[in-house]
Amino acid sequence: MIRVAICGGSGYAGGELLRILSNHPLVTVTTVTSERSAGESVTDLFPNLYHYSNLTYEPLRSGNILDKADLFFMALPHGKSQKAVDFFYREGKKVVDLSADYRLKDAKIYQQWYKSEHKFQKTLKNAVYGLPELYRKEISKTRLVANPGCYPTGAVLGLCPSIKHKLIDVTSIIIDSKSGISGAGRKAEIALSYSEVNEGFKAYAVATHRHTPEIEQELSSMAGKDVKVNFTPHLAPLDRGIFTTIYAGLAKKMDTGRIIDLYKNTYTGEPFIRVLEEGKFPNVKNVRGTNHCEIGLTVNSRTNTLVIVTAIDNLMKGASGAAVQNMNIMMGFDEKTGIETVALFP
Amino acid sequence: MIRVAICGGSGYAGGELLRILSNHPLVTVTTVTSERSAGESVTDLFPNLYHYSNLTYEPLRSGNILDKADLFFMALPHGKSQKAVDFFYREGKKVVDLSADYRLKDAKIYQQWYKSEHKFQKTLKNAVYGLPELYRKEISKTRLVANPGCYPTGAVLGLCPSIKHKLIDVTSIIIDSKSGISGAGRKAEIALSYSEVNEGFKAYAVATHRHTPEIEQELSSMAGKDVKVNFTPHLAPLDRGIFTTIYAGLAKKMDTGRIIDLYKNTYTGEPFIRVLEEGKFPNVKNVRGTNHCEIGLTVNSRTNTLVIVTAIDNLMKGASGAAVQNMNIMMGFDEKTGIETVALFP
Amino acid sequence: MIRVAICGGSGYAGGELLRILSNHPLVTVTTVTSERSAGESVTDLFPNLYHYSNLTYEPLRSGNILDKADLFFMALPHGKSQKAVDFFYREGKKVVDLSADYRLKDAKIYQQWYKSEHKFQKTLKNAVYGLPELYRKEISKTRLVANPGCYPTGAVLGLCPSIKHKLIDVTSIIIDSKSGISGAGRKAEIALSYSEVNEGFKAYAVATHRHTPEIEQELSSMAGKDVKVNFTPHLAPLDRGIFTTIYAGLAKKMDTGRIIDLYKNTYTGEPFIRVLEEGKFPNVKNVRGTNHCEIGLTVNSRTNTLVIVTAIDNLMKGASGAAVQNMNIMMGFDEKTGIETVALFP
Amino acid sequence: MIRVAICGGSGYAGGELLRILSNHPLVTVTTVTSERSAGESVTDLFPNLYHYSNLTYEPLRSGNILDKADLFFMALPHGKSQKAVDFFYREGKKVVDLSADYRLKDAKIYQQWYKSEHKFQKTLKNAVYGLPELYRKEISKTRLVANPGCYPTGAVLGLCPSIKHKLIDVTSIIIDSKSGISGAGRKAEIALSYSEVNEGFKAYAVATHRHTPEIEQELSSMAGKDVKVNFTPHLAPLDRGIFTTIYAGLAKKMDTGRIIDLYKNTYTGEPFIRVLEEGKFPNVKNVRGTNHCEIGLTVNSRTNTLVIVTAIDNLMKGASGAAVQNMNIMMGFDEKTGIETVALFP
Repeated sequence: MIRVAICGGSGYAGGELLRILSNHPLVTVTTVTSERSAGESVTDLFPNLYHYSNLTYEPLRSGNILDKADLFFMALPHGKSQKAVDFFYREGKKVVDLSADYRLKDAKIYQQWYKSEHKFQKTLKNAVYGLPELYRKEISKTRLVANPGCYPTGAVLGLCPSIKHKLIDVTSIIIDSKSGISGAGRKAEIALSYSEVNEGFKAYAVATHRHTPEIEQELSSMAGKDVKVNFTPHLAPLDRGIFTTIYAGLAKKMDTGRIIDLYKNTYTGEPFIRVLEEGKFPNVKNVRGTNHCEIGLTVNSRTNTLVIVTAIDNLMKGASGAAVQNMNIMMGFDEKTGIETVALFP
Repeated sequence: MIRVAICGGSGYAGGELLRILSNHPLVTVTTVTSERSAGESVTDLFPNLYHYSNLTYEPLRSGNILDKADLFFMALPHGKSQKAVDFFYREGKKVVDLSADYRLKDAKIYQQWYKSEHKFQKTLKNAVYGLPELYRKEISKTRLVANPGCYPTGAVLGLCPSIKHKLIDVTSIIIDSKSGISGAGRKAEIALSYSEVNEGFKAYAVATHRHTPEIEQELSSMAGKDVKVNFTPHLAPLDRGIFTTIYAGLAKKMDTGRIIDLYKNTYTGEPFIRVLEEGKFPNVKNVRGTNHCEIGLTVNSRTNTLVIVTAIDNLMKGASGAAVQNMNIMMGFDEKTGIETVALFP
Repeated sequence: MIRVAICGGSGYAGGELLRILSNHPLVTVTTVTSERSAGESVTDLFPNLYHYSNLTYEPLRSGNILDKADLFFMALPHGKSQKAVDFFYREGKKVVDLSADYRLKDAKIYQQWYKSEHKFQKTLKNAVYGLPELYRKEISKTRLVANPGCYPTGAVLGLCPSIKHKLIDVTSIIIDSKSGISGAGRKAEIALSYSEVNEGFKAYAVATHRHTPEIEQELSSMAGKDVKVNFTPHLAPLDRGIFTTIYAGLAKKMDTGRIIDLYKNTYTGEPFIRVLEEGKFPNVKNVRGTNHCEIGLTVNSRTNTLVIVTAIDNLMKGASGAAVQNMNIMMGFDEKTGIETVALFP
Repeated sequence: MIRVAICGGSGYAGGELLRILSNHPLVTVTTVTSERSAGESVTDLFPNLYHYSNLTYEPLRSGNILDKADLFFMALPHGKSQKAVDFFYREGKKVVDLSADYRLKDAKIYQQWYKSEHKFQKTLKNAVYGLPELYRKEISKTRLVANPGCYPTGAVLGLCPSIKHKLIDVTSIIIDSKSGISGAGRKAEIALSYSEVNEGFKAYAVATHRHTPEIEQELSSMAGKDVKVNFTPHLAPLDRGIFTTIYAGLAKKMDTGRIIDLYKNTYTGEPFIRVLEEGKFPNVKNVRGTNHCEIGLTVNSRTNTLVIVTAIDNLMKGASGAAVQNMNIMMGFDEKTGIETVALFP
């Protein structure tokens, strides 16, 4: 039984961590912080978490809670996570950071996209990018995991086998993602209110979304050269899910079945990846509430293009599910503990 | 006052025609046909059309209804429209065909994608593709308009200025479309039922959708050479709307503002096209129930790619609104009659 | 052509007024006020109202705008409307007040439910409750209409013929209403955000909602004695619509058909009331975007109870549509001008 | 480890049983039947149940599957369940029947509401109504449980303490229920398709719904006298959930807090009932995917009426969750096994 703290536990990612961990047999949540909700109980903010009525939010005072946990989940806004992560890490704790602050290896790129300096570059060097399908061994050895962004998870898992096997022209990648509304966070904004969002569909941050450099970092690392992508996020009127449609020119002619086989081989043994049979494509509804990533693909032989589609739950595999998966690996637990759920249907 | 008939009036496109025409001051609907709903009143099938309680569906007997109308809207399934269109056209009537049967100029391509022979190629030669923004003059002179498909409308209107001004590399076009569920038609299918669709998002007909050759026909005609595109349709959980995200490599460097100016110039005076200012992007919610197409765009200078996004209402500009617009042009009415609506919000 | 001002034009009721009036041939909107959005254009706040890009919000300074309009629509929050209504009314203007400030005849009851004093009781005496189906003649003669609340509209229209014909025991009335989310207003609140509301259904203000005394005032007036009701509002995950289910003990045995006849007679000639045939019941989807009220009813002979169900669009017949109807009557225009729309379906 | 069969496993209740049981450590599903889907795998019909790809539907041949299971879940349509239940029961098996066929003790009332004769009245006499909060002991001793209907579950649990403590006038009960769309079953019907249902809200089966006699049977049994109720079901545009608003005259004056205390006492130790504090009310979103029933209540002192509101998940506590709870009790397992889930939020 380990003790964990959740710093920034009043948003959707924090609530999802609390939900998952309430079913995790090896973990106790001892502390949960929130500035705006200090003094309120978890149940006040999340009526579904009725069994957490005795767990109360407190303001984040890193020194005060240091001894209360063995592992810290950081679900703070980008920029606000940097310092606290550095503190807990240097004090010898294990940290899973769900913010973007430790994902980008190059502090200059971080500054360019996030408009603030990275002040803890020494700690940054020790962070491992927490996509277990790529870095399981590194995660098992580190004390600091930078949990991937939601869009990068769907995009990178969809592209990884194609790039590793050099199937595609990496200069031609288009990533068109559609997210449920919970991806925008738990905020009091007119633009996120039901009547504005429902029955709508829109693109946002076209060509400028901050997950772009994170996707490019991982694809470049795989390709062994600098990769730039076109990435467009959209908002779809549903609670959860990210659906990603990826286009890339094929490096050489290859049929759909052969590529599916390569994908299946690449992901053999992966507990949370499902490569679909030819002719089948994912639906976010099939992965809702689960830590799975569904992948389908087809070759468009008329244009010699590979079309890859992936579906994840943005709060599970795209955030808190992955964070628990990383914790399990870091702690030496069975990787699937607490996150082996089956999607509700309907 | 002209008399019109609607053949195939029990589906969503037929219902939308009835709704629009009930506000059209120059038109009377005299006849509406449906095989499956023969004997029922329009109000039985469409409770919103309570004022049509005296209009009853009859089976389609082309000979019987020939004299009842001056213009025939054909909202029959693909394949079923061919013969009736040919009959009414040869009898001297005006016809607006909402099916795909007369859209593709090349009967071989029709056969290849729709898996049935085109038996009325002489009449096919006289059909005009009913996108007024491209073919207004031809529409005003013809008696047979092939009303465009919903996806092609959003895609072609989004690409037209770019291709006409040779801004983009036409070998690189990616069209990623997201449709509301009414686009799938009014059908008794488990796959379309609320509980299956709600809270889901999926792709379908990846690389194989029948609107592909229609898009390619129009883009090729504009480009003056053979154009092939990648087209992926998706279903989003909302009633109405098609959102289309288009990617194409820029032929030469050009900034966003300059391209927006070219778009505005191209569409000057178009009553139903709205080119948005730099930094603004469409939302299907803004065009719901209207005949408008909203267009936004941006240059991704990091990848030298133009990203164009368009939003239409699939049942209005994507089907029945366009059909009435075409009728207005064919009859010499003011083009906007009956279709100058403002979107409900929310 | 009359000139109108909209005071409080940045919320949903204000936006709906702007939308309706953009189709009204006899009205020009000259002024629109909003404190929070002063300086912004209507189009900035309502992308659907793209044609109002030249109309800019200004702060409400009653003296400054007095001469700019013949009639003032007041869509201010409850409490904030009192003084401005009084001012415009005393200056000889026509006023339609969409707030609750002039609905309750008894200032003490107003104070009890709205927790603030009514300071303009002299003007209050001149206000007419703007339900045309009950007070058309009075509305045509007044300069001050208190536009009914959304819930009272559905409830009172559903009960009126039963009370007038003494069909029911007025001590037994239960009103169970279900509203779309736009009824909660356009606000930056987490509780109204998409992810909190979607896939939820809840009751609120159980036994304490402020529309209760308004319903009771009108029912008491009809019944000629003091009537108290049980009223429970609920929030359903949809944009627009109020569905009201009403239960009342029958005063004497009577069959469904007979009561429907009485309802039809009571509402003969009413342009916006649709009494449905036996066995048919309303759906908010059928009245969306329209000024109609659909009414269905049945007798439960096992319990000797009358069940009445009504559906309206909360922003149309429940707010802005009714306000324009009232304006039409006050100005001597055809009552239906600008509000004779047919619902979108789907 | 016991072996279970699911007869009628292709609908939503069957799918939900399969989902729950895949997490149940003491049960193996050996057989699943469906006439319309015979030969298909569970995964073909339920993509979320990807791990059941080896379990294939077979037509129901009672004799053939008798030896394959120790307990039979019957999720067949009403009327079709009678005979098979009788067969398995007489052969000595345990049966949980999710249909209505064995719920009504009085075969005449069954015939009156379900329009077909009950042919197995001897077996009917042995059936126990499967609401553990009322009949836990009887369930633990029987081999045949009639699993309650979804609406009766929410209504009876909401009313039970009030009737047991004689708080209310049982001649005055109004039950107004709002169900998510999955409650209508998995059917290919236009009326259930997304575009017809979304953005709609309607009542159905007003005063005639078949769950009425089931509610009345249980309330009468509690009250010790014949109780009749007004029951109106509605459809709300969401996947899962039943929200029930109940009105009843108070037998004597009593305040809200006191009644809440009585409810808490009545349900002390119940693992799946949550009585909310004064001023708090349920939301179906809080119980989605769980076996919980949330109950809130308030006294309307102005009308001396008690308003009780309950929320359940119609597929869990309203169907398959309750069925597994009943199985657990019948088998002597911990009652909560496999159904102790926490709701997803959002």
